[in-house]
Amino acid sequence: MAYELYYWPGIQGRGEFVRLALEQAGAAYRDVARESGGMAAMTRLMESGGHPPFAPPFLKSGRQVIGQTGNILLYLGARHGLAPADEAGRLWAHQLQLTIADLVQEVHDTHHPVGTSLYYEDQKKEARRRAAEYRDNRAPKFLGYFERILADKPARNWHLVGARLSYVDLSLFQILEGLRYAFPKATAKLERCLPRTVALHDQVAALPRISAYLASERRIAFNEDGIFRCYKELDG
Amino acid sequence: MAYELYYWPGIQGRGEFVRLALEQAGAAYRDVARESGGMAAMTRLMESGGHPPFAPPFLKSGRQVIGQTGNILLYLGARHGLAPADEAGRLWAHQLQLTIADLVQEVHDTHHPVGTSLYYEDQKKEARRRAAEYRDNRAPKFLGYFERILADKPARNWHLVGARLSYVDLSLFQILEGLRYAFPKATAKLERCLPRTVALHDQVAALPRISAYLASERRIAFNEDGIFRCYKELDG
Repeated sequence: MAYELYYWPGIQGRGEFVRLALEQAGAAYRDVARESGGMAAMTRLMESGGHPPFAPPFLKSGRQVIGQTGNILLYLGARHGLAPADEAGRLWAHQLQLTIADLVQEVHDTHHPVGTSLYYEDQKKEARRRAAEYRDNRAPKFLGYFERILADKPARNWHLVGARLSYVDLSLFQILEGLRYAFPKATAKLERCLPRTVALHDQVAALPRISAYLASERRIAFNEDGIFRCYKELDG
Repeated sequence: MAYELYYWPGIQGRGEFVRLALEQAGAAYRDVARESGGMAAMTRLMESGGHPPFAPPFLKSGRQVIGQTGNILLYLGARHGLAPADEAGRLWAHQLQLTIADLVQEVHDTHHPVGTSLYYEDQKKEARRRAAEYRDNRAPKFLGYFERILADKPARNWHLVGARLSYVDLSLFQILEGLRYAFPKATAKLERCLPRTVALHDQVAALPRISAYLASERRIAFNEDGIFRCYKELDG
């Protein structure tokens, strides 16, 4: 049976980390909220009793509804060979994914430092301060961390976890894609110190299934409703 | 062999969610960074090769180092019966824990909306806006979510996951403890709509091992270096 992915239509957002894993797994899935009537179905599940998800994305697999991006990837990774089979390896992959989730939250907060319910235009001044802090301190710290892990491995092994592709590689690819869109200047500068991360990005982009996905209509373009937003004034 | 917990000494912070699980499990552990020379040991592990954690807390179990609060609890929950044994139940517990992690991040950002590397005093103005957004929108949304899950269960079952104690119950207890300290006025008002959450809090506080822990010197007092900080001006 096909998976059902529920996420805001029109943006990549956190849903994209799940989409990339589903695509690389070659799994059949419906992107429900992008279908007619899909938004209503998404709302219904969030308001249901039992095990309602707090927020999209969530994945329906048979009767099971799984929420929280990292948790969905934990589930998919085990089912589709996108994570190590042993417990220690699975926890290490998940640990890296949760660190990526922290980075995603910080990127989101560069344009919404005061609050999600307010428009960007109503927090532009605060956003400039937060974005500077992000560019100067947080981005180098997070990306330097992943680069350090990659640099600790033999040159021909470009994977973050063990020696095989995992969902974490797909997610780090997406991070670099997003940052290039949102902060082109700051990211270009940063990339000079991230040769292994850039190599990982290029290897993922060249995976046949990922490359086909990126060229398809299923891949939504980056835009200013998502997490990675291109606001020139935040790029320093 | 005793677990080794690594976390900033002097604050409850994210480490407290792990401490509560270790205490309820009756597990032997050392709170390493609070011992003489412990901070240096913590830094060494973060700078090590292989599988370094990005940030505290992390847990050493034999030779394995596990980082990210939710990930540590995923591990401990399975080993100490603090989560369901079946995969679906384990994922549901973890999903709730990651939602609690999101709430913790938002509480942190009420006093640090512009950046972690800056002092509170240098972002007081932004903090007032962010805290208002938190009190008016985010806290009711998050806590209302957990209350709704509890309200969906038989009155005598006060547990968030299934019908038995899990690490998620311990974490929601800690959330209410922290919010009462940080936002006494706003939380008192909010609690009128959270009878089941308050009942869960009281049940957890009365667990013999938790109650003994809370009365011990191992429980660090809340303070203004932690995540839950009592700044009167942020309580509305």
